[in-house]
Amino acid sequence: MIREALDALKKGEMVLLYDFDNRERETDLTMRSDRITHRDICRMRHDAGGLICTAIPFASAKKLGLPFARDVLRNCAMVEQLGDIPYDPSNNSSFSLWVNHRNTFTGITDKDRSLTVNALSKVVQNTLDGEPVVFKDQFRTPGHMPVLIAAEKLLDQRHGQTELSVAMAEMAGINPTISICEMLDDESGLALSKEEAIKYAKKHGLVFVEGSEVLEEWDNRQT
Amino acid sequence: MIREALDALKKGEMVLLYDFDNRERETDLTMRSDRITHRDICRMRHDAGGLICTAIPFASAKKLGLPFARDVLRNCAMVEQLGDIPYDPSNNSSFSLWVNHRNTFTGITDKDRSLTVNALSKVVQNTLDGEPVVFKDQFRTPGHMPVLIAAEKLLDQRHGQTELSVAMAEMAGINPTISICEMLDDESGLALSKEEAIKYAKKHGLVFVEGSEVLEEWDNRQT
Repeated sequence: MIREALDALKKGEMVLLYDFDNRERETDLTMRSDRITHRDICRMRHDAGGLICTAIPFASAKKLGLPFARDVLRNCAMVEQLGDIPYDPSNNSSFSLWVNHRNTFTGITDKDRSLTVNALSKVVQNTLDGEPVVFKDQFRTPGHMPVLIAAEKLLDQRHGQTELSVAMAEMAGINPTISICEMLDDESGLALSKEEAIKYAKKHGLVFVEGSEVLEEWDNRQT
Repeated sequence: MIREALDALKKGEMVLLYDFDNRERETDLTMRSDRITHRDICRMRHDAGGLICTAIPFASAKKLGLPFARDVLRNCAMVEQLGDIPYDPSNNSSFSLWVNHRNTFTGITDKDRSLTVNALSKVVQNTLDGEPVVFKDQFRTPGHMPVLIAAEKLLDQRHGQTELSVAMAEMAGINPTISICEMLDDESGLALSKEEAIKYAKKHGLVFVEGSEVLEEWDNRQT
């Protein structure tokens, strides 16, 4: 399904992205950030229910001056509070800062979040185009949209939804600013099972893709 | 309705807490954190849709070593990225760190979030009881549950949902660790209007209370 997934992502459709049976075992609603409207944010919070985050490439974060939260905390003599992440062998969280676009009001409404997400995709595009951009001119922090920074070598380095989604965007040839939201299960209080996620995808005519398929395509592309 | 609201909060019911017509104009589903189950987290994300946060008193945050995010960022030479908050004259965000309890897996499922929230209420209780507690032994950061720190003088200093909810808990004589989640409107993409929030409260037999009522009770209590 990887070809269908890349096509759907390119077209601005939501894709269901499952990671791995031996990792988080979680499916994220995944969508390119430059196409997101407030109705998409609304759908993510209703149908997925997790944290709506936006993943960006490592190189763009560097150009924008966006650090990993873990580094910020380490540099603030709070290193003792940093902990292990049970699902990630590299033990590194992708979280960067939490931001709001300066034209938002509270930052949390669907329109405020889609504004922030759209604007993030634009500044990432600026970094790719080699255009000057000053992050603080457009955003404030702390805010309501967590930015995730993909590992520098993407899937050669880390296998999180952050890297899977940015790698998919790169393979699809689109702006690599991708919004993701974990699909949760109302009954069990746990992540939505893979089987239920596949059912949702079928019901709504969306593509479900697994990390193993993304990884295979990524490895083939690189050789 | 302030008396009914304090009683409902004490009983572990959700209360609809609206701030002020001249502030955020936002209603939060509000509940004591020591009673929250995964079903409550599920309800908050479905029926409210905003960011599920947990507010704690200033004195407890100090004892736990939890800083304001704004101070962390300032101390990391990122002061330039800090911005103004349009709805708050004091221009200070309540955000502290984002944490997960160490026994969580991803940190985002309803069960993981209720575990984190319950545990936060316990360490706050430890601080109130004068018991020793080491925050890092139980939590890791960055995580998925934003902690909010109420202003030191509560409603004498700031009028956010953070201060309103912690002040209500103090007046109700309960553990002052309160979880809140902004109610959003699916159609407009904005915050749920006060009128619609009141309709929701009536439909579900919950209490709706305004910041002005909380403030009046607070001022009367202090004189």
